[in-house]
Amino acid sequence: MLWTRKHLLGLQELSAGEITFILERADSFKEVCTRPNKKVPALVGRTIVNMFFENSTRTNLSFQLAARRLSADVLMFSKTGTSVAKGETMVDTARNIEAMGVDVMVLRHGSSGAPWKLAKNVSCAVVNAGDGQHEHPTQALLDLYTIREVRGGIAGLTVGIVGDIAHSRVARSNIWGLTKLGARVMVVGPTTLIPREIEKMGVEVCHDMDLALRECDVLNMLRIQFERQGGGNPFPSIREYKHMFGLTRERLKKGKPDLTIMHPGPVNRGIELSPEVADGSQSVILRQVGNGLAVRMAVLQLVAGVE
Amino acid sequence: MLWTRKHLLGLQELSAGEITFILERADSFKEVCTRPNKKVPALVGRTIVNMFFENSTRTNLSFQLAARRLSADVLMFSKTGTSVAKGETMVDTARNIEAMGVDVMVLRHGSSGAPWKLAKNVSCAVVNAGDGQHEHPTQALLDLYTIREVRGGIAGLTVGIVGDIAHSRVARSNIWGLTKLGARVMVVGPTTLIPREIEKMGVEVCHDMDLALRECDVLNMLRIQFERQGGGNPFPSIREYKHMFGLTRERLKKGKPDLTIMHPGPVNRGIELSPEVADGSQSVILRQVGNGLAVRMAVLQLVAGVE
Amino acid sequence: MLWTRKHLLGLQELSAGEITFILERADSFKEVCTRPNKKVPALVGRTIVNMFFENSTRTNLSFQLAARRLSADVLMFSKTGTSVAKGETMVDTARNIEAMGVDVMVLRHGSSGAPWKLAKNVSCAVVNAGDGQHEHPTQALLDLYTIREVRGGIAGLTVGIVGDIAHSRVARSNIWGLTKLGARVMVVGPTTLIPREIEKMGVEVCHDMDLALRECDVLNMLRIQFERQGGGNPFPSIREYKHMFGLTRERLKKGKPDLTIMHPGPVNRGIELSPEVADGSQSVILRQVGNGLAVRMAVLQLVAGVE
Repeated sequence: MLWTRKHLLGLQELSAGEITFILERADSFKEVCTRPNKKVPALVGRTIVNMFFENSTRTNLSFQLAARRLSADVLMFSKTGTSVAKGETMVDTARNIEAMGVDVMVLRHGSSGAPWKLAKNVSCAVVNAGDGQHEHPTQALLDLYTIREVRGGIAGLTVGIVGDIAHSRVARSNIWGLTKLGARVMVVGPTTLIPREIEKMGVEVCHDMDLALRECDVLNMLRIQFERQGGGNPFPSIREYKHMFGLTRERLKKGKPDLTIMHPGPVNRGIELSPEVADGSQSVILRQVGNGLAVRMAVLQLVAGVE
Repeated sequence: MLWTRKHLLGLQELSAGEITFILERADSFKEVCTRPNKKVPALVGRTIVNMFFENSTRTNLSFQLAARRLSADVLMFSKTGTSVAKGETMVDTARNIEAMGVDVMVLRHGSSGAPWKLAKNVSCAVVNAGDGQHEHPTQALLDLYTIREVRGGIAGLTVGIVGDIAHSRVARSNIWGLTKLGARVMVVGPTTLIPREIEKMGVEVCHDMDLALRECDVLNMLRIQFERQGGGNPFPSIREYKHMFGLTRERLKKGKPDLTIMHPGPVNRGIELSPEVADGSQSVILRQVGNGLAVRMAVLQLVAGVE
Repeated sequence: MLWTRKHLLGLQELSAGEITFILERADSFKEVCTRPNKKVPALVGRTIVNMFFENSTRTNLSFQLAARRLSADVLMFSKTGTSVAKGETMVDTARNIEAMGVDVMVLRHGSSGAPWKLAKNVSCAVVNAGDGQHEHPTQALLDLYTIREVRGGIAGLTVGIVGDIAHSRVARSNIWGLTKLGARVMVVGPTTLIPREIEKMGVEVCHDMDLALRECDVLNMLRIQFERQGGGNPFPSIREYKHMFGLTRERLKKGKPDLTIMHPGPVNRGIELSPEVADGSQSVILRQVGNGLAVRMAVLQLVAGVE
């Protein structure tokens, strides 16, 4: 198979073959990341710009380091203030920065669809680093990579995604990726946080954490966004959420003995995961972070079009 | 000709020969910037510091990338807060950073003359990236480079600079550069925005946009600074300014068919330029941005004194 | 001697031999820093993260540049906001960033002891870039390096440290280093700013600046932290402090003719030092800054474990 896409915008539009192709590419970069010298000359003299219109520390650092390890030059552009015509500003800004001679733009933006809009307006490659409540494809790719690494494959596994499914781009991208690769996917959470017709995405809905624990081989525990609470938002209280869906050492006993615990970070310790579970032997949270480097190196090298 | 200057502070003090020398140097870097690998080893192991005491995204990114493409190490220092003894703080800060072993300091500062003050107090090279309402030499150099590239030369052309001439360092540096290289320069705007004795700089004053359109081969449309409005400042209303000096597709018909439209960016779309004109075939705005890289690479390499 | 420590946390725990070993390593990097090309390939492909939980410009830039001159990749993480469980957040953040494949973490933190806590929780090397009022080992190392360079050695010298000894990590690390290397150390300041039992650290206490001037070969003038004034804090007024302990050209005449004046920067000109003294021939303040690069290159290369 040859990689033919110019951009990496979302997993919805990728085939199972394309997703697998990226994961296999990441294997070779994972090997690079175990060497003392983690640098390869793949993108010498290429320019990658991180355009972050939303706060992000980890994803930003991960893409920065991935680009540097490919020997690319990296520029940072951050603008987290609000403006009326945000969309237009973004495209205008991007076209100006692109004119400096940019090969890849990595975009984080609060508006769903922003990376597609950008891709239509620039001639360089675009990588979506999270758009609104829509997609976060490299997070899902690193999640898939980690499951495949830990469990030996993805097809046939039952994977639960637990939390605020309605507002989570991580959930959405994971659903696309997991179902395409043949996993059975359960979305787990209170009714208020699960969109009505989500079954159409090919998933099962579950409101009972104990049931999820019995069924799942992998649980991806989403981060609770405190800021969504209150204001008429039908969000349960933190206390209630923790009681119903938080994963403690005690509750973990109800799951399969080899259950794999994932979290996109940063963890609210003591809420969605107790500290013992977050740091326990079934948790692969830090492994996810490390795999993020390999996956992002693979993605950047693919879209930069340089073999 | 040999380059003998230690600093690049302003175009007023440069000869026509020196300006041309920089533009010719930029030609070779423009070629570099068209390669997939845009990196040259010219400044390996040299250190360049961007000292920005005023907010700037584009100029900062452009200098950063220019330095990286020359393989220099780049440090960023930004301080946009105000302090009583700003001037002294700047020199003190600079001498401390210089002591780390710096080859070139790129200074953006809100006070006119700051780069000259800095040059007297450090032993490394200084490049002015914009000082108060005084000079912005690399912006003017990239404008000259673009005119020369698009029109085949500068001498004999009529170039209009439109907008708030009184407060614009871009205008001032452009006037010095254009007149030295033999262009006829018209400054165009309302009387309140054109300094009284500006004819002494060798330019013609014009308050009539239609006249300017008939006469000019190139129009450099300055950005309107909204923040100057009100407060007793004799600035016309945005609406009035746009009506009298804004360039729309309709008004553009009154100009020469090959009129070149420039803008230092970022454009207030719908005010000094309508979107159709900003993105139209006569606009060279994004080309200016790209040329900025080549010009800044030439300047940094010249003042770093490394052949 | 072989370097066997994984981290550089403080000078209290280092032997005289280890301190001397670092200073001798710095000699070779000082030579590198005099070349036009100041870059060596020592840490190619290694990753160093500057984790700064407190504002710092100079130390941050110095570590950045030291890392780049060793050809390492450098990431910046800054978080200066407060949070309730700061300590826990720091460790959590660090373990996540470490998972990206980090070789050295350079930590600046407002809590005394934070680097030791970090070192227990990550497997990469940790360098303390200043923790609370506790230690700032690389500052003391560059001070020691500068004294040794200017005076030919440290043993047998009388070194005065002047100012707010009670709250100064620079003072504390200097005291450990100077006494281990055989200097006689006087701490000089008003009683309110000198901890009661400091003699146990092997220093003499002096409240009389004129006496200190007669005795000392070197004076390290600490920066007065204005923010500590008022609020019931028994800090003398700036005016009184300046009168009693500030070093002016006039008062300098009471010292030995070859007295060396040091300051960790940034100087409050006109308070602890008059401008003439800060910029005078006895001041080695900018030399300290330059030596900081050599010392930090030595430290980073040692803890990165790469010969």
